[in-house]
Amino acid sequence: MVMAEIKIEFPDGSVKPFEAGVSVLDIAKSISTSLAKKAVAGKLDDQLVRLDQKIEQGAKVEIVTKDSADGNVVNWNSAALVLTAAIKSIYPEVHFGEIDNGEHGFYVDTDKTDQQISVDQLPAIEDKMKEMIKSKIALKHELVSVDDALASVDGDPYQAMIIKRNAQDNQVSVYDIDGKIVVSDNVALLNTADIKAVKLLSVAGAYWEGKSSNPMLQRIYGTSFYKQKELDAELVRQQEARERDHRVIGNNLDLFFVDPKVGAGLPYWMPNGATIRRTIERYIIDKEVKHGYQHVYTPVLMNLDAYKTSGHWQHYREDMFPPMDMGDGEMLELRPMNCPSHIQVYKHHIRSYRELPIRIAELGMMHRYEKSGALSGLQRVREMTLNDGHTFVAPDQIQDEFKKVLQLMVEVYKDFNITDYSFRLSYRDPKNTEKYFDDDEMWNHSQSMLKAAMDDLGLDYVEAEGEAAFYGPKLDVQTKTALGNEETLSTIQLDFMLPKQFDLHYVGADGEEHRPVMIHRGLVSTMERFTAYLIEMYKGAFPTWLAPKQVTIIPVKDDLHGEYADQLRQKMVDQDIRAEVDHRNEKMGYKIREAQTQKVPYILVVGDDELEADAVSVRHYGEESSKSESSAEFIDNLVNEIATYSRED
Amino acid sequence: MVMAEIKIEFPDGSVKPFEAGVSVLDIAKSISTSLAKKAVAGKLDDQLVRLDQKIEQGAKVEIVTKDSADGNVVNWNSAALVLTAAIKSIYPEVHFGEIDNGEHGFYVDTDKTDQQISVDQLPAIEDKMKEMIKSKIALKHELVSVDDALASVDGDPYQAMIIKRNAQDNQVSVYDIDGKIVVSDNVALLNTADIKAVKLLSVAGAYWEGKSSNPMLQRIYGTSFYKQKELDAELVRQQEARERDHRVIGNNLDLFFVDPKVGAGLPYWMPNGATIRRTIERYIIDKEVKHGYQHVYTPVLMNLDAYKTSGHWQHYREDMFPPMDMGDGEMLELRPMNCPSHIQVYKHHIRSYRELPIRIAELGMMHRYEKSGALSGLQRVREMTLNDGHTFVAPDQIQDEFKKVLQLMVEVYKDFNITDYSFRLSYRDPKNTEKYFDDDEMWNHSQSMLKAAMDDLGLDYVEAEGEAAFYGPKLDVQTKTALGNEETLSTIQLDFMLPKQFDLHYVGADGEEHRPVMIHRGLVSTMERFTAYLIEMYKGAFPTWLAPKQVTIIPVKDDLHGEYADQLRQKMVDQDIRAEVDHRNEKMGYKIREAQTQKVPYILVVGDDELEADAVSVRHYGEESSKSESSAEFIDNLVNEIATYSRED
Repeated sequence: MVMAEIKIEFPDGSVKPFEAGVSVLDIAKSISTSLAKKAVAGKLDDQLVRLDQKIEQGAKVEIVTKDSADGNVVNWNSAALVLTAAIKSIYPEVHFGEIDNGEHGFYVDTDKTDQQISVDQLPAIEDKMKEMIKSKIALKHELVSVDDALASVDGDPYQAMIIKRNAQDNQVSVYDIDGKIVVSDNVALLNTADIKAVKLLSVAGAYWEGKSSNPMLQRIYGTSFYKQKELDAELVRQQEARERDHRVIGNNLDLFFVDPKVGAGLPYWMPNGATIRRTIERYIIDKEVKHGYQHVYTPVLMNLDAYKTSGHWQHYREDMFPPMDMGDGEMLELRPMNCPSHIQVYKHHIRSYRELPIRIAELGMMHRYEKSGALSGLQRVREMTLNDGHTFVAPDQIQDEFKKVLQLMVEVYKDFNITDYSFRLSYRDPKNTEKYFDDDEMWNHSQSMLKAAMDDLGLDYVEAEGEAAFYGPKLDVQTKTALGNEETLSTIQLDFMLPKQFDLHYVGADGEEHRPVMIHRGLVSTMERFTAYLIEMYKGAFPTWLAPKQVTIIPVKDDLHGEYADQLRQKMVDQDIRAEVDHRNEKMGYKIREAQTQKVPYILVVGDDELEADAVSVRHYGEESSKSESSAEFIDNLVNEIATYSRED
Repeated sequence: MVMAEIKIEFPDGSVKPFEAGVSVLDIAKSISTSLAKKAVAGKLDDQLVRLDQKIEQGAKVEIVTKDSADGNVVNWNSAALVLTAAIKSIYPEVHFGEIDNGEHGFYVDTDKTDQQISVDQLPAIEDKMKEMIKSKIALKHELVSVDDALASVDGDPYQAMIIKRNAQDNQVSVYDIDGKIVVSDNVALLNTADIKAVKLLSVAGAYWEGKSSNPMLQRIYGTSFYKQKELDAELVRQQEARERDHRVIGNNLDLFFVDPKVGAGLPYWMPNGATIRRTIERYIIDKEVKHGYQHVYTPVLMNLDAYKTSGHWQHYREDMFPPMDMGDGEMLELRPMNCPSHIQVYKHHIRSYRELPIRIAELGMMHRYEKSGALSGLQRVREMTLNDGHTFVAPDQIQDEFKKVLQLMVEVYKDFNITDYSFRLSYRDPKNTEKYFDDDEMWNHSQSMLKAAMDDLGLDYVEAEGEAAFYGPKLDVQTKTALGNEETLSTIQLDFMLPKQFDLHYVGADGEEHRPVMIHRGLVSTMERFTAYLIEMYKGAFPTWLAPKQVTIIPVKDDLHGEYADQLRQKMVDQDIRAEVDHRNEKMGYKIREAQTQKVPYILVVGDDELEADAVSVRHYGEESSKSESSAEFIDNLVNEIATYSRED
């Protein structure tokens, strides 16, 4: 029998012939022994596959190695299978929900009728996993019939639903691990031995299918790596992330809370958090007004028709709240975006070219429907207030206005001490122009304007073809959250479409009607997301101008020094400093520690010496020692520090 | 035949016998001829009736005279009938909707198929009315069968619906005016002659039944009085009201607009209006924070269950927006009040007696369903932001806290220069205590505390028994709008009920759980209503600290003095003054007039002299002449004026 020859194309573009039926591992071996040793999976036409996957026809192939992101995913998939098998062997009666990888490891959802698995059981389960890794057990992959699969899960209702969900041509992908059958579509290693280092981390409730009306399962989280060193580094990173987690800090500093019983994804800003938010809001409004923005207040509700005109209702309905029937034939919708509202403001007058650019800004409250499973603290919410702005420009003003927004943005970042960010310029796909708003000249003109503006300002940026929105090119500013997720902090988007949909005009110098271009821009995203970001960035130790409590004054003896403390406080309050006196009948050390726990920027201790000299003993947050200063000097410095946003330049 | 004798009781408590079948006019005559001359109607057991109403059994009777508010209503009802008859005689094909009295006159809704009645037709119609008044035509009142009434309106569809609406025992009340039949339940005079002075005022669209989905009719407004002098005074008052009407000023000064096409009752605050609102908001937050309030942000949405617990859903549903079904079994409701939200903030911690009073405040956005016919500018809206606050106190703190709120309120009024207001203290009805929240001791204790606080502060007040809310006594501060309507500007309400409904506690000095009392308070009502009130009070000429534009600088010659003007502006902007330079190529007189029309507090003209001396020529709004001042002095004074809220004391 003559084997058919197939052509395999590699990432570097080279093409080599192989016999049909060759496996990914065979191909790796044919390249080099060292590559085969590092190989843990393959990519077949960009699709992750197992090392033993046979290839029957010509394809693009990439070898996935241990040191790649995909390599980690394969490890996590394998560890999830081993975890499932380990639990099956210890608790045969457990039911299983999702068995999958996450962003930094893996998880398995479990349901145990008599008593749920808790964190106390994790060490024993982890020991069992390590034993299975040591035992070098094959992770045998099979396609079985739905009936066989159903029989193998022995009445587990969740697994039965997953089998039906996964079934293709009446077949389901399963792994056989030492006789334990685990239903999974994921790509795993060939043998448990390759997993090497594993750690179970935590247990938390997770609703079946992410819906709060479904039963809650126990989700066991873990992570694994090819080297113990990598696992150790990840554990340090996770510890750091936990310390920065805005939900934990938000609770410790009494900044906000969310209670799904009164409303999922609807945060309550407690006085401390509200003070931070208010300070940010006033800062951003004042800054924008000074930069020529006209701030407005527009309703959070709008006639649904407007969202039909804008196209949101057709394309975005899943993310919108249910419309409300007001009688009178009026359907009202909680707005998911502020653009149509600002368009109303623009349209309220006939506009002349002399007025352009017109910059309409608002702290605009919006509502978006997020699945309850996706909600998280202030980061993912259903009610949010966006630092929004829409500028209406003549086409020849695009470059200049884009530059102005960028300069403003960089100024704002400086004031918040944000340094870790990168720019991403998104163009339309030049090979697929019919996918975009149809105006070639406008696209070419505006894309080159954006690029020229970035170059003019000497900013580094990545260009991404094919990542523009349908309605125009954009610039995104990317940052990372404490948990390592990428997030868009700011965005500037050109829009050629909405001005057309809403038939916007201005009267030009020629007396004729012309169509403006809209620029959507958010400097610091929503108040919710930005505050979450700042909490994580500052680890809760806010710079003085943002800190909810700026000064705590502690009298050494309240009967002797309490009055002096009150006088000091009044002087500060008169200068709009948020100062408090701790008059409580507690030990001084206790009061100091508490103020430190609350991350108050300045602790002032006042006793006999201070009273006599009209001075204060100052301890700055994060510093071990305190120093003495005249009270006037301290207050002057503080006023200046706050006015300059605690910047040190 | 012996006539039965009946007993008539008069307002002064006296009782006199009359023969059954006596008319109101007969009774008036029996008292005095002069009373009979002034009499225009009666009140039979508090119900307005015609002078020829016969009385068949014992009753309370009051004679309504020309110089009373009810007397005016009777005049307006009569004029509305005459207006209808007049139109019928000039335009026989007109259909009629509502025919009724309003707060300051009367109106008749008309529909004319070929061409609607417009303001141009009013003089001819008014002439016809005056002719009918001169002709002394009887206003004959009759009860006719529904069929007869339907026949008389000759296919008028609105009147047919009104006949069905008004029908009782298959009978309908109509007036016969010189052969013209007008359907009306209203109480009118006996003869057109008594109307004396009449004036038709305006025409405006009005939806049938107040619903925007129904056809729009033309509403003709007019007013009438027993004396020409009274009519003249009313016309002057209306002219004044029009000049103060916040909708007119709001449009002229570009402060806000409402567009029912994008949302009835949902105002858009344009940049000028938004500046005023933002200034008010910052003022009130800063003031409250200094007075010990903790400002929060809480969601505008809440689980409907919370409003079932509070009782709003049971008792207030008609005024609430339709709930939204979020799936997951969650029903969300746009909040009609902020109290349940602030209760969540209170409940988020276990509270100790040491923390009380806890003052939670918010600029809380709320939504209330008002019929579209009732909506008006910023005064009656569907989306509003309340300057809200809820204080949780121990029962023995009521008096002290109530006093503190009052002091704060008076301070705020002073800063806004509000002087025309009165206090109204509302108690429960002592004869009907079972109608109120059941806690006698609490009522007695708290009512006497409120009274004592008012007396302590030396404030004048009216006491109103039986006007308390179900849940506790209250104090209202009443003012009048430009249109003469009474309005509640501020309110302080005690609440014994919600703390019970939501099971609120604090831990007392005794270590036991105790129930706090809630104090609801709003200092300046909603941003919408308060701004409307201020627009009318100031006639749009806002004091400098609130004015959207504080200074307009006009260079005499832009090429020579424009740069100096810009430098001045920058100095002011650096001090947070809202200053603008008018660089336009227009005549100086034109620019000055325009700035005056915009009611800008300060107009600075700068030319050669000013440039040389670093001075400004200042013209204050409302003053005829200008004076010269050094620019530094002008700016210093202005900064001080703004910081002290333009108060002159």
